[in-house]
Amino acid sequence: MMRSIENFRTFIQSYIPLSDEEWEAICSDFKLRSFEKDDLIVEQGKICRHFYFFEEGLIRVFYNIDGNDITKSFAIPPYCFTSKISFRNQVPSEESIQALENTVVWRINYEQYRKLEKIETWNRFMHKLINEIQEFTEKRMLESKIYTAEQNYELLLKRYPAQLMQKIPLKHLASFLGVAPQSLSRIRNKLHTNRS
Amino acid sequence: MMRSIENFRTFIQSYIPLSDEEWEAICSDFKLRSFEKDDLIVEQGKICRHFYFFEEGLIRVFYNIDGNDITKSFAIPPYCFTSKISFRNQVPSEESIQALENTVVWRINYEQYRKLEKIETWNRFMHKLINEIQEFTEKRMLESKIYTAEQNYELLLKRYPAQLMQKIPLKHLASFLGVAPQSLSRIRNKLHTNRS
Repeated sequence: MMRSIENFRTFIQSYIPLSDEEWEAICSDFKLRSFEKDDLIVEQGKICRHFYFFEEGLIRVFYNIDGNDITKSFAIPPYCFTSKISFRNQVPSEESIQALENTVVWRINYEQYRKLEKIETWNRFMHKLINEIQEFTEKRMLESKIYTAEQNYELLLKRYPAQLMQKIPLKHLASFLGVAPQSLSRIRNKLHTNRS
Repeated sequence: MMRSIENFRTFIQSYIPLSDEEWEAICSDFKLRSFEKDDLIVEQGKICRHFYFFEEGLIRVFYNIDGNDITKSFAIPPYCFTSKISFRNQVPSEESIQALENTVVWRINYEQYRKLEKIETWNRFMHKLINEIQEFTEKRMLESKIYTAEQNYELLLKRYPAQLMQKIPLKHLASFLGVAPQSLSRIRNKLHTNRS
């Protein structure tokens, strides 16, 4: 299948207007890259060297803390991602990003990203994107505080397509929700019973 | 006491360089305002009409959900704050911001803020500030997920000056940590016993 980066243009234009010239300047360095299921796109302890437009697949962000694998978030395309602190400062990443499905991205390296930062339109796009991510992170923080694991699981079911949810291993969903896998099994069984 | 907005200049300059001309353009509309202990600076359900530079005092951000008062965060000066979603879109706020101590701010209204957004230096400052807030929010989210209430309380003790911590009512600390006030009392007693 022939891929085109036009999806990225459509994504940016859902935030800001974009002229042909601006788009050409933005897209010129992005390169296509594929990852297989379970590949690590970013690895904890190594420097994250790329900024990604996420075209297809499913990813999760996680930490390994004292041997425990803790899922911070899941993401579905289209979106942009990187390991922000690591990428911005070119220091080792405190998190890993893993493909949970065959995943297709367009990426640029740090030097190429620095060139983008000279484009005013790009900065306005990134500003809007970071605002959105910040609002979503705050929302998630509140939800995880005030809702039970069961309610948070139901929110996930609403937020992500069912066929993607089925592809996330139970243990990752459980560590995201902060419960043991057995507890999540009980929650799932309960919800399933209530609905059938 | 005569107040000067120079602290705001120092604050911005800790993020980006600032010429005299840029500073004059940025600061011209900011007005001084004081709040007394317990005053609501932003009220849930009402539109947040200002952007604030926080010069002195102590604030907390909280939600009232089904009659329960849940503390989202505390903040100490110098910093900037607003109820972001409400302010940006001029829609009713989903959160309240309260002064926990006599609090001094410099503020501008929405129309004045829109003028600031035409200043390139201001946008670069805000971009850095939002990045910082985003990183801190993610960090807090991880901490609240992986640490016990006791460990999270110890983090608070490290992060905020002791004399400010003493001014935060127990019930607000407890709702921030997601525990009952009685549990927090036990944690405090235990830490106190261990240290004495």
